[in-house]
Amino acid sequence: MERIENYTLLTDFYELTMMGGYWAHGRHGQRVVFDLFFRSVPRGGGYCIAAGLESAIDYVLNIRFGPDELAYLRGLGIFPDEFISALGSFRFTGDIDAVPEGTVVLPHEPLLRVTAPLWEAQLIETALLNQVNFQTLIATKAARIVQAAAGDPVLEFGSRRAQGADGALSASRAAFIGGVGATSNSLAGKRFGIPVKGTMAHSWIMSFPTELEAFRAYGSAYPDSCLLLVDTYDTLKSGVPNAIVVAKELESQGHRFVGIRLDSGDLTLLSRGARQLLDQAGLRYAKIVASNDLDEYLIQDLKNQGSKIDIWGVGTSLATSKDCPALGGVYKLAAADNGGTMEPRIKVANNIAKITDPGVKELYRLFSPKGKWLGDLLALAHESVPESGCFETRHRTLPHVRRIFEGEWRLERLLQPVLRNGKQVREVEPLSQLKQRTLEQLSKLDPQHLRLKNPELAWLGLTKGLWQLKQQLLREHLATAGP
Amino acid sequence: MERIENYTLLTDFYELTMMGGYWAHGRHGQRVVFDLFFRSVPRGGGYCIAAGLESAIDYVLNIRFGPDELAYLRGLGIFPDEFISALGSFRFTGDIDAVPEGTVVLPHEPLLRVTAPLWEAQLIETALLNQVNFQTLIATKAARIVQAAAGDPVLEFGSRRAQGADGALSASRAAFIGGVGATSNSLAGKRFGIPVKGTMAHSWIMSFPTELEAFRAYGSAYPDSCLLLVDTYDTLKSGVPNAIVVAKELESQGHRFVGIRLDSGDLTLLSRGARQLLDQAGLRYAKIVASNDLDEYLIQDLKNQGSKIDIWGVGTSLATSKDCPALGGVYKLAAADNGGTMEPRIKVANNIAKITDPGVKELYRLFSPKGKWLGDLLALAHESVPESGCFETRHRTLPHVRRIFEGEWRLERLLQPVLRNGKQVREVEPLSQLKQRTLEQLSKLDPQHLRLKNPELAWLGLTKGLWQLKQQLLREHLATAGP
Repeated sequence: MERIENYTLLTDFYELTMMGGYWAHGRHGQRVVFDLFFRSVPRGGGYCIAAGLESAIDYVLNIRFGPDELAYLRGLGIFPDEFISALGSFRFTGDIDAVPEGTVVLPHEPLLRVTAPLWEAQLIETALLNQVNFQTLIATKAARIVQAAAGDPVLEFGSRRAQGADGALSASRAAFIGGVGATSNSLAGKRFGIPVKGTMAHSWIMSFPTELEAFRAYGSAYPDSCLLLVDTYDTLKSGVPNAIVVAKELESQGHRFVGIRLDSGDLTLLSRGARQLLDQAGLRYAKIVASNDLDEYLIQDLKNQGSKIDIWGVGTSLATSKDCPALGGVYKLAAADNGGTMEPRIKVANNIAKITDPGVKELYRLFSPKGKWLGDLLALAHESVPESGCFETRHRTLPHVRRIFEGEWRLERLLQPVLRNGKQVREVEPLSQLKQRTLEQLSKLDPQHLRLKNPELAWLGLTKGLWQLKQQLLREHLATAGP
Repeated sequence: MERIENYTLLTDFYELTMMGGYWAHGRHGQRVVFDLFFRSVPRGGGYCIAAGLESAIDYVLNIRFGPDELAYLRGLGIFPDEFISALGSFRFTGDIDAVPEGTVVLPHEPLLRVTAPLWEAQLIETALLNQVNFQTLIATKAARIVQAAAGDPVLEFGSRRAQGADGALSASRAAFIGGVGATSNSLAGKRFGIPVKGTMAHSWIMSFPTELEAFRAYGSAYPDSCLLLVDTYDTLKSGVPNAIVVAKELESQGHRFVGIRLDSGDLTLLSRGARQLLDQAGLRYAKIVASNDLDEYLIQDLKNQGSKIDIWGVGTSLATSKDCPALGGVYKLAAADNGGTMEPRIKVANNIAKITDPGVKELYRLFSPKGKWLGDLLALAHESVPESGCFETRHRTLPHVRRIFEGEWRLERLLQPVLRNGKQVREVEPLSQLKQRTLEQLSKLDPQHLRLKNPELAWLGLTKGLWQLKQQLLREHLATAGP
């Protein structure tokens, strides 16, 4: 297990060679603006949930090239001594604006905007992407699973198959932001205050001579939190009847039984059968927890089939986002200082969707007077955006597609100041508040955006000003680029 | 970024409730044996490469419930004070035997065998699985990619899309064990001594007025490690010609140019075109590095098409094992002490492949006198296995499938003592040695096991003794299990 005290070097080596190169040419102090965004929603979903900001900021605030880091870099033999010495006092001194965690976000929307001296902006690229990509991926997957569970609690227990220690820990954090109620990961419980859940594995049952003895032993050790795993031998003929025996014994001692867990077999049939047995025994209040390779699609199917499951335990498919285990977030130069003016920059690519939106930008969300989400808007930072009238917005890539807003609307600025001159200016929000934001925002989404398969993406438009700047830079590029 | 000093609580909460339960009933000291194994090779491959042992052992050796951990558990309000106090002096005191990292392993082979008091064996389950599952997954993926590259160096650079900080760091370690030559992750370089690679991103090129100026600037900063990214504008009309200008300038100053990197477009066409231009300019020695969503299948295709790529950079698909992001390793009770005797235990399941192999077992690899791998064998630990004669082995699940070894063979015992009474008894191997083992073992595999798609799995047999024990326990289970 890697106990890392200093994460400064969690950066791609080319960030360091570029930093050294900029430094050698006296360009490292040039002020630049980078946007962090993703280009598509995993598995063709209708939304992502932004997450990972706090972890990313923690990296930035703690950047220090200590003696060990400097010695390592010196030992590589490719950096000049003066550069290594300069790293010794390196700190992040720039600004970061970001969309708060728990916000619904769309492709091409900047989740973070970094304004900083060139070498600082470059160093932090890898860690920002690492944290924001992964946690956004998992918060999004969690939100889908919570959506499929339609109000039933969801538990995350993917640690044993997560991608490393931090894969487990960060997944628990992001899953909670995405709406999950609890985790099996005790370290995530301690670190983040997430409720922890878990009672027994099959090995508990098997270590006793009989299932009933195993259940009784658990009930006597935890009389007020007794949830029994009933599928070790035969769920309906042995597990549930034995659980009922223990439940009634606990009741007679003044305790309240919690319920049962199913971990194999046909969960619709077994949950219906178990519910019937529990109800007949007067245990209507007992909960049925189910687990076993669940994901949002299977949960939806089980619910449609009339399963009687109250609580859903989801492991691997949540903690690794198994059907799409990476979010392809990128970090692109949007503007660079030229003699005191921030000049917009564009990245041109053969693939039109990969052409970036240039300049220092703001991201707005538009709501109707009644609070309905109308769409999102990318504007140049210096543009003033109206809140009434007749307002035309353009599609990012298709010149013939426009959307006109008429009447009145309300604007919400999504990018919030987080760091100014390297200092934190925004309070860290409690995790429960981030989760609250997710649930609130999803509750406002139209059904066409929420559909798990083949949803519509909400509108993201450019202002006419930004659209014209983009076209102008593309024309200039055609005229001048190349050898 | 999570700087965790104490990973003890990286455990599923049910391990703790079970520990508390065993403790309450005075059963926590019962000596038991658990096996850690997986049931199938990801994506139907022909082998896995064991990895993650050192990280797992590091967890075990550092288990300490300190004041913070105890306070957290006490605050949950479900554990008795005496149990919490007992945790204060908890240490792992058991034995662990394990297959060395870098070993080719098959489904149902114990990678680790834990012999310990019940509550100790239970606590470590989650962390052992977390580390061994993930690193074995990535080492295996790396080995496939290295195999497809057929002798060309492979670089790992997946940090920005890896699953968290440790997802990136452990992936670099495991990928190196699997045969990869270098990583982009500077922290992995410092921590594990893995060579680091990387030169520039597109942002470097874009921050200069022209591509040629950008290349010159890089060449002057790093004249002896100059590898240029040539696809920012037009690879063959601009990028490669400009790179050649700088390469010749470096040559004239007595330096040796390294090469170019392609990161987009048709890699077969572009690499062939670039090779031709480089060769015509007298730069036959210059290397061509390619990247852009590569995996083992694409590398194989590109090589079959006659691409001229010398070095392969692989990111997301390697660091997340994108087409199969989890290995389903499990941890199952194999034996438990009963009055001084280790009694074999079996887990029975409806799915015949999920029925465990009972008892304390050894894992052997059989080689012909000439060193050809003949198959693997699970035997009971007390059985003596012959090295000549006529020796029948049984299929794990199919009673009619047997394999008979005749003549002479050599036995290699795969499980090595790692911990005895909680103390390390096996030296930590250098990472380069683990990688050497991988490459050596793969070089001995028959083509039918190496095929990337639809390979044959090598033979894993049970001794007649183990097979009979398994059948006997199954019969006893049928006779006695249930309510």
